Amino acid sequence: MPIAVKTDQEHFKYDQVSSYIMQLIDKGNLKPGERAPSLRKLSSTLKVSISTINQAYLSLEDKGVLTARPQSGFYINAELNQAIETPKPIITACCQPRKVRFGQLFEEIFTISNNPRVAPFAAARPSMDLMPDKALIRETRGILSRQPAACMDYCFPPGHQKLRAQIALRYANMGLSISADEIIITNGATEAMTLALQTVAKRGDIIAVESPTYFSVLRLIEKLGMLALEIDSHPKTGVDIESLEYALDTMDIKAMLLVPNFNNPNGSLMPEKNKDQLVELLNSQEIPLIEDDVYGDLYFGSERPGIAKYYDTEDRVLSCASFSKTLAPGYRMGWITGGRYHEKLLEWKQATSSASASIQQLAVAEFLRSGQYDRHLSRLRKAFREQVEKARFMISRLFPEGTRISDPQGGFVLWVELPRNINCYDVYTDALEHNIGITPGMLFSATRKFKNYIRINCGFPWTDETEKALEQLATLINELNK
Amino acid sequence: MPIAVKTDQEHFKYDQVSSYIMQLIDKGNLKPGERAPSLRKLSSTLKVSISTINQAYLSLEDKGVLTARPQSGFYINAELNQAIETPKPIITACCQPRKVRFGQLFEEIFTISNNPRVAPFAAARPSMDLMPDKALIRETRGILSRQPAACMDYCFPPGHQKLRAQIALRYANMGLSISADEIIITNGATEAMTLALQTVAKRGDIIAVESPTYFSVLRLIEKLGMLALEIDSHPKTGVDIESLEYALDTMDIKAMLLVPNFNNPNGSLMPEKNKDQLVELLNSQEIPLIEDDVYGDLYFGSERPGIAKYYDTEDRVLSCASFSKTLAPGYRMGWITGGRYHEKLLEWKQATSSASASIQQLAVAEFLRSGQYDRHLSRLRKAFREQVEKARFMISRLFPEGTRISDPQGGFVLWVELPRNINCYDVYTDALEHNIGITPGMLFSATRKFKNYIRINCGFPWTDETEKALEQLATLINELNK
Repeated sequence: MPIAVKTDQEHFKYDQVSSYIMQLIDKGNLKPGERAPSLRKLSSTLKVSISTINQAYLSLEDKGVLTARPQSGFYINAELNQAIETPKPIITACCQPRKVRFGQLFEEIFTISNNPRVAPFAAARPSMDLMPDKALIRETRGILSRQPAACMDYCFPPGHQKLRAQIALRYANMGLSISADEIIITNGATEAMTLALQTVAKRGDIIAVESPTYFSVLRLIEKLGMLALEIDSHPKTGVDIESLEYALDTMDIKAMLLVPNFNNPNGSLMPEKNKDQLVELLNSQEIPLIEDDVYGDLYFGSERPGIAKYYDTEDRVLSCASFSKTLAPGYRMGWITGGRYHEKLLEWKQATSSASASIQQLAVAEFLRSGQYDRHLSRLRKAFREQVEKARFMISRLFPEGTRISDPQGGFVLWVELPRNINCYDVYTDALEHNIGITPGMLFSATRKFKNYIRINCGFPWTDETEKALEQLATLINELNK
Repeated sequence: MPIAVKTDQEHFKYDQVSSYIMQLIDKGNLKPGERAPSLRKLSSTLKVSISTINQAYLSLEDKGVLTARPQSGFYINAELNQAIETPKPIITACCQPRKVRFGQLFEEIFTISNNPRVAPFAAARPSMDLMPDKALIRETRGILSRQPAACMDYCFPPGHQKLRAQIALRYANMGLSISADEIIITNGATEAMTLALQTVAKRGDIIAVESPTYFSVLRLIEKLGMLALEIDSHPKTGVDIESLEYALDTMDIKAMLLVPNFNNPNGSLMPEKNKDQLVELLNSQEIPLIEDDVYGDLYFGSERPGIAKYYDTEDRVLSCASFSKTLAPGYRMGWITGGRYHEKLLEWKQATSSASASIQQLAVAEFLRSGQYDRHLSRLRKAFREQVEKARFMISRLFPEGTRISDPQGGFVLWVELPRNINCYDVYTDALEHNIGITPGMLFSATRKFKNYIRINCGFPWTDETEKALEQLATLINELNK
């Protein structure tokens, strides 16, 4: 199935060729050990020059996907895939709501992530090298010149109309009819989730979450005095709906919170029919769903995955997202569209933090309107995909036998299951001694069940230094495995 | 007592002359009906040209402070002061903690304040015309050019070190030893107070507040499920310490929250010895004090008032402030220094909203460092003082007999007690029909005891339009008084 080459830009074609080969491998059309299509044949199939194909093949060789054999051409690496197993689903016989309790470790993860001397595998943050700094800074400086008073004055909740209108337009492109008036601008998705939890639940209430869950969400539930009920989840397809059904039958769950698209840390992606079933199940019991879609725009496939809110017939899904993972984390531009809870969300926003920063609202609105954001996203998705693939391949070759690695179809983190005898906290402390940051798996559950898991951030372009850091990390883990 | 004229700039001298005359009147050295010093004499005393003195006198005449008599010179307006009474203290025999309940009115105040067609007496917000837009925008654009990556990337709590260091320096100038590490940057003072309340109290707890209290604080207490206990306060000297002592003896108060300097709405300023007594009293019972000092830099007198934290020997005062009233509301730059509660505040900030916007942290830090902020403040204080004085004089002449007006020594709002038969909500709705915004007094208490009070924002330079709007407001109120 030839793919359309949509632009003339060389880097775009080159990416397309790599993606095409990766897709053939993913679908099993090309198996490890087999010969890749010849340069000449692929050039004719894809209508791309032989030199571009050659460049793409060399880059795939560099990533360990292909192996060049003299006089014979390129072959799919024989070790590819067969050694890379994805983490096992964890099924717990019974589930109990838990008080979340964490120590110092949370703050440490952020502290070490602010330290440029520490290899950047810890916090889930994109490298600024991948962000459209020149274009966004230019837009922001332009806004400051053209609208100084609007930049300096309050922009009270729900936030600037222009930004809300642009976000509404993006929902429309996803098939959702959400007006600008139903959107509230927030200080990142973190504040959006805080407002959502405060609106639908209170101290002592049980919040169902998938497992593993991003540790900052667990921390938020802890601070608000609520209880986290961890529902079994599949590493590929997300929350297990039967487990949720069982939990709903036996417990008084006040709300559910999850990341349907590319969950942090395990990268799970709920199939559309699961999202539909989930929303129907929760709606049937009048339980609100808070979804966090910060990674939804970072899909590796050909189509953006849908959001749970799309399947919501009762206006009971509160959908949160942000531009923090895709454009500029420090701009703190997030939002929430909360259906029937809109008025209450607005009251909480007004009362607890009032207006959000004006400059960024105006600048991001203009960046979206001009089409620059979408062009940037298409480059960013390719970069993240390549970075994740490379890390995945390196880890599969360097880490101890028995290591399993998530196979995310979007986002930029990997979830790595180490042999059971390795404790992730030992990995964390040993790595930190060598100025390497990772996030230990135990942070992603209140039950500490991910003791032999670690999360690896791949949000940065690979350099010799980061490659060496990953090699050293592997050495440390292999030593712990002795 | 001659005053030093510090700069050569004409407008500065001119302001100094006006201030000098106002001080003489305030201290009773010049009484209503008396003759003001002659141009020649004052020129010689202050070492300022006669034409500057003349300009200053004409502007004071314009504001109703002086009256020119042909061939005789300038006289202090005979009606000045004698007709302007300040609001009466309200003493309630017993106090009860209350659930705060407000309707739609809160959001309306913000909505009408965003409407440029409505006369701007409603929200307590400074006009952007008074803000150093050119200088601050230039600084912000410079930061974007010089530090694009830092502007785009996360700046995790506690926030940027440079800004925290500048704030620490300001505390040092006030005689407080607070290090940058004890300060957390927040989304305005509103978020600072949210973090403070969440840190020291929980749902159902009683929070003592002064009365009247800024309605957003009451709203915040409501949203957090806490109870507001309103302590009697004096319109000039703030919270009545004996009343607080009585309340502490009879009720389980978890924390106190107040604005020691230029309380919004009544402008009360706690004398330093009262602050000292208050902190000692609360410390003796191990009760934390949350103080909001957003107006402290906007003093009309010669010296900045102190903050309660200065008198804190137990590290139990949580001091909040921001640059929203003094520099750029839309920059959302607030902070908190919370003494013994620092770690918990930091956890709350990290969990509920994570990083604050980066651009503004860097820009404000530079604006402070360069000395531009302090130069701006000295102009701003004079402008607010003149605007407040003018409003006060106009209201005293135009509003019904029996009207009492606060006499704030800082800030930019007036608190107006109307004859008892006038309901502030009627004033609010009648005024809004004529596109005039005011804030009804009932919002400043959970007990609705300020039914015949209104708050007037004076944060804007007077124009013909705003003067006419105030005249029309007076006509409406006089009609309601019939």
